[in-house]
Amino acid sequence: STSDTKITVELLRQLRQAMRNTKYIAEPIQAYIVPSGDAHQSEYIAPCDCRREFICGFNGSAGTAIVTEKHAAMWTDGRYFLQASQQMDNNWTLMKMGLKETLSQEDWLISVLPENSTVGVDPWIIAADQWKNMSKALASAGHSLVAVQDNLIDAIWMDRPTRPSTQLLTLGLGFTGLTWQDKMTALRSKMAERKISWFVATALDEIAWLFNLRGSDIEYNPVFFAYAIVGMNTIRLFVDIKRLAVPTVREHLQLDTPSKVELSIQTAPYESVFTELQAVCASLGPKEKVWISDKASCALMQVIAKAHRSPIPYTPLCLAKAVKNATEIQGMKMAHIKDAVALCELFAWLEKEIPKGTVTEISAADKAEELRSQQKDFVGLSFPSISSVGPNGAIIHYRPLPETNRTLSLNEIYLLDSGAQYIDGTTDVTRTMHFGSPSAYEKETFTYVLKGHIAVSAAIFPNGTKGHLLDSFARQALWDSGLDYLHGTGHGVGCFLNVHEGPCGISYKTFADEPLEAGMIVSDEPGYYEDGLFGIRIENVVLVVPAKPKYNYRNKGSLTFEPLTLVPIQAKMVNTDLLTQKERDWVNEYHRQCRETIGAELERQGRKEAMDWLIRETQPIA
Amino acid sequence: STSDTKITVELLRQLRQAMRNTKYIAEPIQAYIVPSGDAHQSEYIAPCDCRREFICGFNGSAGTAIVTEKHAAMWTDGRYFLQASQQMDNNWTLMKMGLKETLSQEDWLISVLPENSTVGVDPWIIAADQWKNMSKALASAGHSLVAVQDNLIDAIWMDRPTRPSTQLLTLGLGFTGLTWQDKMTALRSKMAERKISWFVATALDEIAWLFNLRGSDIEYNPVFFAYAIVGMNTIRLFVDIKRLAVPTVREHLQLDTPSKVELSIQTAPYESVFTELQAVCASLGPKEKVWISDKASCALMQVIAKAHRSPIPYTPLCLAKAVKNATEIQGMKMAHIKDAVALCELFAWLEKEIPKGTVTEISAADKAEELRSQQKDFVGLSFPSISSVGPNGAIIHYRPLPETNRTLSLNEIYLLDSGAQYIDGTTDVTRTMHFGSPSAYEKETFTYVLKGHIAVSAAIFPNGTKGHLLDSFARQALWDSGLDYLHGTGHGVGCFLNVHEGPCGISYKTFADEPLEAGMIVSDEPGYYEDGLFGIRIENVVLVVPAKPKYNYRNKGSLTFEPLTLVPIQAKMVNTDLLTQKERDWVNEYHRQCRETIGAELERQGRKEAMDWLIRETQPIA
Repeated sequence: STSDTKITVELLRQLRQAMRNTKYIAEPIQAYIVPSGDAHQSEYIAPCDCRREFICGFNGSAGTAIVTEKHAAMWTDGRYFLQASQQMDNNWTLMKMGLKETLSQEDWLISVLPENSTVGVDPWIIAADQWKNMSKALASAGHSLVAVQDNLIDAIWMDRPTRPSTQLLTLGLGFTGLTWQDKMTALRSKMAERKISWFVATALDEIAWLFNLRGSDIEYNPVFFAYAIVGMNTIRLFVDIKRLAVPTVREHLQLDTPSKVELSIQTAPYESVFTELQAVCASLGPKEKVWISDKASCALMQVIAKAHRSPIPYTPLCLAKAVKNATEIQGMKMAHIKDAVALCELFAWLEKEIPKGTVTEISAADKAEELRSQQKDFVGLSFPSISSVGPNGAIIHYRPLPETNRTLSLNEIYLLDSGAQYIDGTTDVTRTMHFGSPSAYEKETFTYVLKGHIAVSAAIFPNGTKGHLLDSFARQALWDSGLDYLHGTGHGVGCFLNVHEGPCGISYKTFADEPLEAGMIVSDEPGYYEDGLFGIRIENVVLVVPAKPKYNYRNKGSLTFEPLTLVPIQAKMVNTDLLTQKERDWVNEYHRQCRETIGAELERQGRKEAMDWLIRETQPIA
Repeated sequence: STSDTKITVELLRQLRQAMRNTKYIAEPIQAYIVPSGDAHQSEYIAPCDCRREFICGFNGSAGTAIVTEKHAAMWTDGRYFLQASQQMDNNWTLMKMGLKETLSQEDWLISVLPENSTVGVDPWIIAADQWKNMSKALASAGHSLVAVQDNLIDAIWMDRPTRPSTQLLTLGLGFTGLTWQDKMTALRSKMAERKISWFVATALDEIAWLFNLRGSDIEYNPVFFAYAIVGMNTIRLFVDIKRLAVPTVREHLQLDTPSKVELSIQTAPYESVFTELQAVCASLGPKEKVWISDKASCALMQVIAKAHRSPIPYTPLCLAKAVKNATEIQGMKMAHIKDAVALCELFAWLEKEIPKGTVTEISAADKAEELRSQQKDFVGLSFPSISSVGPNGAIIHYRPLPETNRTLSLNEIYLLDSGAQYIDGTTDVTRTMHFGSPSAYEKETFTYVLKGHIAVSAAIFPNGTKGHLLDSFARQALWDSGLDYLHGTGHGVGCFLNVHEGPCGISYKTFADEPLEAGMIVSDEPGYYEDGLFGIRIENVVLVVPAKPKYNYRNKGSLTFEPLTLVPIQAKMVNTDLLTQKERDWVNEYHRQCRETIGAELERQGRKEAMDWLIRETQPIA
């Protein structure tokens, strides 16, 4: 462990005390689960919701902590093994998910708990489907899962921040392609098709998308804390009422002059969703059904009586949001062009500055942010920049801190995974560079990763194919040499929304995976990581587009990907002998597009040095 | 429809009458489900269990029929679309599974049933997991699923055959590598590990494997109708008692002189499993658990109270059986050598005979069986031979009948998918040949299929990889040209057991898929089918073996496949320009092995013509 490690002896003592304190619970509980998310199951969360980080120190985006009377364990996946082991002290056991020998949370609890134990969790921050699985597994072993209404972390968290309530931004048709009224009508027609009376929206990005509103309550994610309940003639929006005082917001939502009764929005405080949903459910006819995501909080799910509940893995909003319309696609393209301009400038600058020995992971990331912020309609970063040198690159979701900050040099690989929010779109790009002379092994592994990146990007596949079927294409070259990487290959990307969104992706994990369709946008980001030495990742954001291969089996049609990210891939890192002619052609065609599209914009913006860098970095490879 | 079509007007009238007849049910039911399987969820079934075929005419291996007051519909997958549409008359609607527009059984029932309907099914022939899903879906729409104890098909099936009870064959250590006592001990140690008191074995191949016994109750599958219930000190075998009168069987099972109390087998009639399981369950302590497959019949599952029930997707027997031991691997290799000898002879014979115009699909299949039957320890075929010429090849699970029988010629592609049971192993091989001059298009598509076959066979992948992650490798070359095939790429293969077995395979379907391990045996069989023209499939049975690539990421180790099937792949069908050098090398190395291994056996058996054919067909390609 390093200076980054959180000392948790006292906190664990306090939490265990709370677990026995009848102020919070009728009977002592033998274990307390601290999930990662907030009441909306957000991946990135506001500071007031960072309860798992507070109790164990690990601040990655995914992880669940469980504390029993004697043990404390934290589950996270391969992206975070190194980081978690550095951030947690010896009171904690790191449970490495994805390894065969690692027990699941349920099995671990069953193995450590005394007979007839009670396990507690805050019902607002555990998803309904997780509650169900956990509850069932514990019951089968004679234990029980109980909802603890007072959050026990909050009870011991003295300086817990308040919930943010930032200013709302309204988006016009030029950015969204559809009015919120259009989206509401489409939602209701899907409800009618399935004979659904009410829909409860709980995911923050879905609510932002539906109302064409954005906020900045959560860093990197332009969302705002809200719930919505939609009926065939009713729209209820639950949000801090103060935020609705702004005239542009009132006008956008037609709060004062609704055009039609069924498009009139009733607003209510954020906290009142529970009682309002109770009221809605109390008035339901015997056959009426309520749609709610099975990832909604257990607290809300349980408000809806089982007979009325229709839990769905993906809401109609999630599916509609994933398929971008022409306006959104155009916006995403513009955002990626601006983003590429900033990165070309950055890399040109780095080349000049690194030999002076003054550029660090943090200052490089800051420079990238500064250059991005000069671009039109920049809002902020889309996630914390992973700016990592040498061994830090092997920490898959590394975030440089003063105590880990390395200096960029001519001797070590530099990996930069970063992205931004622009009003017209969201970006996410990773480039791995060497500013001196890469070793043969570094080039070899980089080239395997590149082969995987190309295999996915150039793949042609039938309409209706799920992304997980493409995941192995990204790994084939690595597997052939006995190598692999312990993360998925790609995730859905929102349009001026969350940089990670469902319901599609490219991963060996098959549970969150709807078929790919033209208009969907995902990342393609295979990697290779050598603990203690370096990390390699090559990531583009790509658009699913129709393909026109030679034949058309059963008129099913084919799809492929079009890269939206247009930033050169460093040829110096490539061992061209390991590429096939088709792969070399792909690289050259990709670089031709970078030069053409980004070159035009660099010229328009008069950015000469970046232009020279772009021209040089896009020379055809032999 | 053809002369193969079954006329079902009268049968459906009788079934609908039975659905209202209070002799069978207290209240009329509005729909009756006729699943494909028997009480053991066997894929291949005895004639007395072919109820779905009896009611609708479709005799493929997978399909479910549902009859309502007004409708009759039958669900099957892409392998069988053509066959089912030919075998069913106009009273039936073919529900094409896997197509986006096709409703699931549940959704279809909900769409056609009147309010508050009752759907009936025989609880012995519906798997517990299917019952659960169906019951839940129907309940959510206000309907209910009920168990109908008397099978309504049997009620109208006048000449229903009786249940077979064939002679049992005992297998010694030289074939099994482990005594049944060893297997019992291993099973009990897994039960102890998981604190399980009882295990109920319901799958026929698992029972045959556990006791090192074989039967021939079901054509092609060397199994016998039985159940077993295993406790820590008890073994109960439920089987037609007459079969146990044979001295060799009594001795094998130590029925008269058990070596130890806990290895003493109590035998009881097949039908008594229900009451005996009730008795076992009645005597359970409060914490005792019973293991049973969630694919066991609903009837047996419901005997076990929920508190005692521990349903598992794969039983420990299923997992143990899938990983072949050294004796079994050796046996499988021997079986495949003998099988290849027979096929080399067949193909040499076909070359000579086809020009005379006297060989048909049926006579070619018969000849293959005759040649196989000359090999040592031949028992029978492992499935009905798919011997198909030209357009018949596009019917994926075609079986030649007198009325469909085509003559082999120099103008059409011939596809033969066949296999045998030998006492030492089970085979399954597909070769696609042209005895004249294939067209450019036939060669092109054959070559794509070959590229897919090689991509899987030569794949190197990390230990612990699930088979579904390899499925796309088989499709990549086809996808690149807009082509595909609507079946999985591979299935597990038993050792002198079922030719299809779980729990691993290579398929885009991810639900029945345990990680691949060294010692597992699967098929590799991509294909391409052009309705009305031809079918192509190239199938080898392959053994999972450790691989030794250049690196070993995180000491995880790598795996690859070793072909057990050693029958030349027709070079005439290959467009070598479409192969990479690596692929050409693979073909040449494969043919070198065929020549070496099968050549030695042909020589030993003095089969000169087949030898000449083998030598010619294994010339290196350029």
